[in-house]
Amino acid sequence: MSTDPSPTGHDWRDLVRYYLLDHRTPLGKAIDIVLLALNLVFVVVFVAETYPLPAGLQVVLWRLEVGIAAVFLVEYVLRLYGARDRLEEVRNPYAVVDLLAILPTLLVVVLPGVATVANIGFLRSVRVVRVLRFYRFTQDAEFFFGTISDDALRALKLLLTVLVLLFVSAGLFYSVEHVVNPDVRTFGDAFYYVVVALSTVGFGDIVPVTTAGRWVTVASILAGIIVIPWQASKIVREWTDREK
Amino acid sequence: MSTDPSPTGHDWRDLVRYYLLDHRTPLGKAIDIVLLALNLVFVVVFVAETYPLPAGLQVVLWRLEVGIAAVFLVEYVLRLYGARDRLEEVRNPYAVVDLLAILPTLLVVVLPGVATVANIGFLRSVRVVRVLRFYRFTQDAEFFFGTISDDALRALKLLLTVLVLLFVSAGLFYSVEHVVNPDVRTFGDAFYYVVVALSTVGFGDIVPVTTAGRWVTVASILAGIIVIPWQASKIVREWTDREK
Amino acid sequence: MSTDPSPTGHDWRDLVRYYLLDHRTPLGKAIDIVLLALNLVFVVVFVAETYPLPAGLQVVLWRLEVGIAAVFLVEYVLRLYGARDRLEEVRNPYAVVDLLAILPTLLVVVLPGVATVANIGFLRSVRVVRVLRFYRFTQDAEFFFGTISDDALRALKLLLTVLVLLFVSAGLFYSVEHVVNPDVRTFGDAFYYVVVALSTVGFGDIVPVTTAGRWVTVASILAGIIVIPWQASKIVREWTDREK
Amino acid sequence: MSTDPSPTGHDWRDLVRYYLLDHRTPLGKAIDIVLLALNLVFVVVFVAETYPLPAGLQVVLWRLEVGIAAVFLVEYVLRLYGARDRLEEVRNPYAVVDLLAILPTLLVVVLPGVATVANIGFLRSVRVVRVLRFYRFTQDAEFFFGTISDDALRALKLLLTVLVLLFVSAGLFYSVEHVVNPDVRTFGDAFYYVVVALSTVGFGDIVPVTTAGRWVTVASILAGIIVIPWQASKIVREWTDREK
Repeated sequence: MSTDPSPTGHDWRDLVRYYLLDHRTPLGKAIDIVLLALNLVFVVVFVAETYPLPAGLQVVLWRLEVGIAAVFLVEYVLRLYGARDRLEEVRNPYAVVDLLAILPTLLVVVLPGVATVANIGFLRSVRVVRVLRFYRFTQDAEFFFGTISDDALRALKLLLTVLVLLFVSAGLFYSVEHVVNPDVRTFGDAFYYVVVALSTVGFGDIVPVTTAGRWVTVASILAGIIVIPWQASKIVREWTDREK
Repeated sequence: MSTDPSPTGHDWRDLVRYYLLDHRTPLGKAIDIVLLALNLVFVVVFVAETYPLPAGLQVVLWRLEVGIAAVFLVEYVLRLYGARDRLEEVRNPYAVVDLLAILPTLLVVVLPGVATVANIGFLRSVRVVRVLRFYRFTQDAEFFFGTISDDALRALKLLLTVLVLLFVSAGLFYSVEHVVNPDVRTFGDAFYYVVVALSTVGFGDIVPVTTAGRWVTVASILAGIIVIPWQASKIVREWTDREK
Repeated sequence: MSTDPSPTGHDWRDLVRYYLLDHRTPLGKAIDIVLLALNLVFVVVFVAETYPLPAGLQVVLWRLEVGIAAVFLVEYVLRLYGARDRLEEVRNPYAVVDLLAILPTLLVVVLPGVATVANIGFLRSVRVVRVLRFYRFTQDAEFFFGTISDDALRALKLLLTVLVLLFVSAGLFYSVEHVVNPDVRTFGDAFYYVVVALSTVGFGDIVPVTTAGRWVTVASILAGIIVIPWQASKIVREWTDREK
Repeated sequence: MSTDPSPTGHDWRDLVRYYLLDHRTPLGKAIDIVLLALNLVFVVVFVAETYPLPAGLQVVLWRLEVGIAAVFLVEYVLRLYGARDRLEEVRNPYAVVDLLAILPTLLVVVLPGVATVANIGFLRSVRVVRVLRFYRFTQDAEFFFGTISDDALRALKLLLTVLVLLFVSAGLFYSVEHVVNPDVRTFGDAFYYVVVALSTVGFGDIVPVTTAGRWVTVASILAGIIVIPWQASKIVREWTDREK
């Protein structure tokens, strides 16, 4: 985050970079809040589209999705335009996630034929990575409402990691199972399944019926039993240290 | 607990506060024991009312519940009357729990019509918070039978936390599931389910069939995999330290 | 173990105590090995009697059980006779376990009518405590084959604790379930169930069908999630320390 | 690994030993890579043979298996020939694993009649030990692509241990269950089962139906709940230490 702390002269490029990275000035804060809110809506739209809805609402959701994707496309282009080293910015993991999150929606808009021919289900599942966009907001301790402590930031990141793991696993599981598994009709079913599986409870009321669903489960379990205890032990250690 | 160690003069307010907080004088001890015993009965009544019982016994249990709630109402009012700072006392978590524990019962007595119209099931589930009242008895190390060690008090608190988590989860799960789930007919079924789920065993012989039951399960699991290992690791650490 | 290191004079009482506690002289070692072997057979007989066997073999097993119980009764009486402080010996946890382990068998022999009237199933389940007798052999580091290291002795005790927990849980679960649960026909079924439950795997292929079976399961799980990780963390810490 | 760093004179024995143990010279590296690749194929063949395949492909796989086993037999003989102390080499755990991995295949080739009479299923299950051969490649930190750090080598060994545990458990479970259990038709089914069981999730969609399958499960669970947390805690500790 070694950014120039103030825009100099009429350099638009610096100005763009400044406001996209800044969380202190009113405009920088406003941009931050709008982007966070749009991302929340973007994720909610993804979840909502898995539920049976009246056709009218589905059209509204789709328009909302395309609109938000357009805003994020503009954001992506502006970040690239404003970056000091553009090649580095393209390779930046946050930028890669930004692109992946909007690409499936854009593909369907720009190339509807190709997208229909290609596996729509796979495109759907890729869209779940948009939840990863939230990481950008935990990059530093300055939030719109003020600066939070280091401990709280770390706890927030860990909580986000667990939520992202649950969300991405549920999204992938939903994608590969919902067509053939009568027990997995909505994202909610998949989320319940993933919480039960990754907490190692494993009731068995919902089980994968496809080979892809089994692989998603195996990968999620292996990720979960490494990531969750590791992160949880960190949080617990921090709590314990704070109590002393 | 920076209370005045002795009641001075004829100040009733001080006297009331003194005896409700004191565990050393015979009267203070007696009040403490009676309240603890009444709370135990209050919890047992909650559990017993989930079992199929003859109508006569149900009436007895209901009268017992109303009677105990009346005693606790008097206690609540006296605590408020005796408090140095009454606004602070109202906001005190222990006082909030005290009120929540008796409110559902009082509502049914005072406003039977409204309570019937309102969701009785929800009122029922709120009544499970009465188990939280036990925390007040672990506030300090002085018990009616004597003073216990710091370690024992901490272990007792932790054990109580685990029991409260199991009890509240079972109460909520029972509330939302027992109407539609043939496997959850009594509080005992729900308690068995919660122990099997929160220990991450997860046999799957009892599973939630309602969306609400699933959310209760997800919330309990997430609470359990954070709270139980955290508390257990504390107990284990204490035991290990004591062995050295 | 502050025993007199050598028998003095013709004092039979000292002699008895000496040989029952000693693991170094050939006679002391022989007594130790015989008692350990008899206890192993005693446990195996308990397990074997849960399997469907030809009537002839059942009679042999029963006679074996009575014979070993008689030997252990003699051992118990001799220990009491040889003890410096007999009241203390009666209250000794090892002696209590010794008595509990043989009492059910003796009751059936001495009072066949009463035992039949009393709940035989309950007597059966109490017999599983005979596995606790093995603890006496881990009292000190001197074994018939030589002295083992402190670490090895501790590891052995921990392993024994886990095995005893599994064995006693399986024995209790078998006792309360085998009459009504078609999935629990032998001790082996109950042992598999207990390993699956206490490891928190919980497949759900075998589940308790009785209320007693559920309580045994809940108690075993709660014991297991406290005892096993605690013991395992101890072993792991020892291994880790040894690696340094 | 106290090997002579360079072959002297025309001593074939030293030369053989040198190239089989060396990872630095081009020839040593080439031998290492070929053996690793052959072992990968050897394991893949074991897995592939559990799937329903056209007869032609089955013949190809069988020839591949015999061919690779022949190469490994040559390697085994050369290692023995080149060893300074041949008796020690025979007892070397790596050499024992090498022999066990190829013995079942060789037995079927050399003594087809005996192998058919003997339990082919058992021979099949023994073949899974070939996955243990990979341990030899983690003996030191010199890989064909360069030297890796101590931490990375340890992490690699631990990952391999977990994979070997899963793989061997799946292989044994497949061997004992696939004949009678309609849910365990391929190695993939057994692998999914083992991941679900050893992570303690335990859905119960696949459960052992044979007594042997239950014992494999019990043994794998007990191995897993000791080995996996132990190894995982090591990895986590290393990661945590590295972060400091």
